[in-house]
Amino acid sequence: MTLPETAPAGAEPADASAPTAAASPDRTGISRRGLIGWAVGSGVAGLAVGAGAAAAGAGILRGAAPPDEFAFEGAHQAGITTRVQDHLHFASFDMMPRARRDDLVSLLQDWSHAAARMVTGLDVSASGAVGGPSEAPPDDSGEAQGLGATGLTITFGLGPGLFDADGDRFGIAHRRPAALAPLPAFVGDALDEAYTGGDLCIQACADDPQVAVHAVRNLSRIAFGRARLRWSQLGFGRTSRTSAEQQTPRNLFGFKDGTANILGDDAEALDAHVWAGGGGEQAWMAGGSYLVARKIAMHIETWDRLRLSEQDRTIGRAKGTGAPLSGGDEFAEPSFHGGAIDANAHVRLAHPTVNDGVRILRRGYNYVDGNNGLGKLDAGLFFLSYQRTPAQFIGIQKRLATDLMSEYVTHVGSGVWAIPPGAQKGSYVGAGLFS
Amino acid sequence: MTLPETAPAGAEPADASAPTAAASPDRTGISRRGLIGWAVGSGVAGLAVGAGAAAAGAGILRGAAPPDEFAFEGAHQAGITTRVQDHLHFASFDMMPRARRDDLVSLLQDWSHAAARMVTGLDVSASGAVGGPSEAPPDDSGEAQGLGATGLTITFGLGPGLFDADGDRFGIAHRRPAALAPLPAFVGDALDEAYTGGDLCIQACADDPQVAVHAVRNLSRIAFGRARLRWSQLGFGRTSRTSAEQQTPRNLFGFKDGTANILGDDAEALDAHVWAGGGGEQAWMAGGSYLVARKIAMHIETWDRLRLSEQDRTIGRAKGTGAPLSGGDEFAEPSFHGGAIDANAHVRLAHPTVNDGVRILRRGYNYVDGNNGLGKLDAGLFFLSYQRTPAQFIGIQKRLATDLMSEYVTHVGSGVWAIPPGAQKGSYVGAGLFS
Repeated sequence: MTLPETAPAGAEPADASAPTAAASPDRTGISRRGLIGWAVGSGVAGLAVGAGAAAAGAGILRGAAPPDEFAFEGAHQAGITTRVQDHLHFASFDMMPRARRDDLVSLLQDWSHAAARMVTGLDVSASGAVGGPSEAPPDDSGEAQGLGATGLTITFGLGPGLFDADGDRFGIAHRRPAALAPLPAFVGDALDEAYTGGDLCIQACADDPQVAVHAVRNLSRIAFGRARLRWSQLGFGRTSRTSAEQQTPRNLFGFKDGTANILGDDAEALDAHVWAGGGGEQAWMAGGSYLVARKIAMHIETWDRLRLSEQDRTIGRAKGTGAPLSGGDEFAEPSFHGGAIDANAHVRLAHPTVNDGVRILRRGYNYVDGNNGLGKLDAGLFFLSYQRTPAQFIGIQKRLATDLMSEYVTHVGSGVWAIPPGAQKGSYVGAGLFS
Repeated sequence: MTLPETAPAGAEPADASAPTAAASPDRTGISRRGLIGWAVGSGVAGLAVGAGAAAAGAGILRGAAPPDEFAFEGAHQAGITTRVQDHLHFASFDMMPRARRDDLVSLLQDWSHAAARMVTGLDVSASGAVGGPSEAPPDDSGEAQGLGATGLTITFGLGPGLFDADGDRFGIAHRRPAALAPLPAFVGDALDEAYTGGDLCIQACADDPQVAVHAVRNLSRIAFGRARLRWSQLGFGRTSRTSAEQQTPRNLFGFKDGTANILGDDAEALDAHVWAGGGGEQAWMAGGSYLVARKIAMHIETWDRLRLSEQDRTIGRAKGTGAPLSGGDEFAEPSFHGGAIDANAHVRLAHPTVNDGVRILRRGYNYVDGNNGLGKLDAGLFFLSYQRTPAQFIGIQKRLATDLMSEYVTHVGSGVWAIPPGAQKGSYVGAGLFS
């Protein structure tokens, strides 16, 4: 195949006059889906929200651009505080055994270049799906032609394995973040290697699943010879929200999930709990974050046979309204005094008050992978969380050892990745690691 | 679990005043998504399109109802001519070994009752997810609460195995349609039992995947003790259109697919090619159809390395525009004289002119089931077609033995089901088979 060119130093990542972007629907109507509510901190392209956005690292704001399009460049990568899109294609990659530092650098450059184009609705390269010579394979596989950006974000992560590769073949061992290490084993883990780990990860989120799939597929092509797909996961229903404009979605236990999530415009909470930097952190990680992924199989048939009161007790909230059992509405602060909420209810054990104030930003998805050999739906939650350090997730997950809910879930996949800050204009994600 | 009540004879299938339906968004604006264009023949509820709709079997039209809601009852089942929704959850079931005629009848009654509720955005029963006693398991698993109908259609089918069960335990052998038999083996088939066959099928389509998944999950619960899930498949991108209002979508080869499909308002073509009845057909099948499902794995990495000219030659159309290589625009009739289109191009071998005028109505979906052990995306087309008799599909599929495209696809799953006509108000799908 013909690889798209690597990003030239001064390249414009997006060409708003190109045909694909021009074909994108809904160029008018910026209040659609409550865009204003997401602008601060989520990198909405095309909205001149000014200093507030810059402060929260919303990235480069261009002039006229369609809504539902999020800039690739910025202080932080998009896809973290961005309002959670409807669909996910997550992919984990391993570097090829003979790959070296230059391969890793060129891969991150090529990925960033293609990603910056795709998030505007463009093909991976200028010649794209049909603009190249007819006697060569097209650069772009073509199934996203005409679909537009549909809110696509592409977020890249670097796994622990890159930093302790044999012979330090990537030359980055000395820049390993102290916090970046494989997660410890947790009570109840039943991890499958087929859904665990990876040197690199891509989180592609979009409102059209074909756009997310197209992104992973084409980034996987671009990786040819340097990295290869280790595992991937589609998710179809978001299980959290990062904008007050979004309804709290429901997980496959039928409960609202993510009610108390960190919102994308809560700069104070983001600085305290999500953005890495300061202290002993590696300088290249400033403005980055850490991503934990957990594939959590849900025993939905067993759950479905629980009486409603037991379901409520397990979660600590009412199934219908999402209100804590201690009273109030969905957004009322739960009270853990008086016994209304069981001491081992999920909401209590995951709550900041029993975790030294620790919070994480979640943006998981529901999944159904067909069915298992017993005629049961193979379903669950693909949990994704962002935090300043993986220690936040580790602490909460250890606390959940006595969670009533653990009887109905099994963690079958796992991974942790350092999420570099956003690319600067004309540069690439991870550039700071190699400079 | 508490099973929902079976459908009482005079039951209203939808209660527009119930809370879930009332929470459905977008109750105004009937022109959204070009609904008018779909009204004839697709069973749009709530639009008084009158005689034209009745003639095409649009079913029962209620008074005020939200758009994107399709009536369950009617001359034909919904989900055939209905404009193709964005998402699919398809499921195949086998009757339990000890199940008898009464179990099959009660299952179809219970399924129809629940389906008629769910397509209006309601839970499977009046008590639903949270309205029952707190000391009992809820009737409904709850993850679709508040999501609305989102265009949900639920289409039921009856497989060949029901009619030749041991000892004719369902008592319907004498009513077997002559055309209903397992499909013959085709050149290149590599069928996996895990994706093949089944006594019953459910095609759930909706614009929100969580709504389609919720439908299959809850119908699977209702089947408990009578039938069990054999296999299921999620599809995320439609690969055809049944309304002139819909853009022609692209399959994972990056080509427009379904350009020449039968449209839902083409009553003449539907009568000629889709609706069963007349001749030697079983009386209970009048107004029904036959569904063929094929899980077609696509070798996308190989395809992606083909030069563009060879991709175009294989299909017989241009990748960008979808126009036939013989000239004109996407909707131009291809010419098979003059050599512009290869004799073994897919478009030619599937075309009515080389298939004795035979056409089929397609409504397939793209799928990605994660990846295989070789680090390749496990991707393809979940092909679904409706026809007056399976012989239409069989003839075309035999013709495709020399299809240039067959080098890049492998059929790994298969099934055929008789699709009974739509339920009459207060009755159930398949009632005619048992009367």
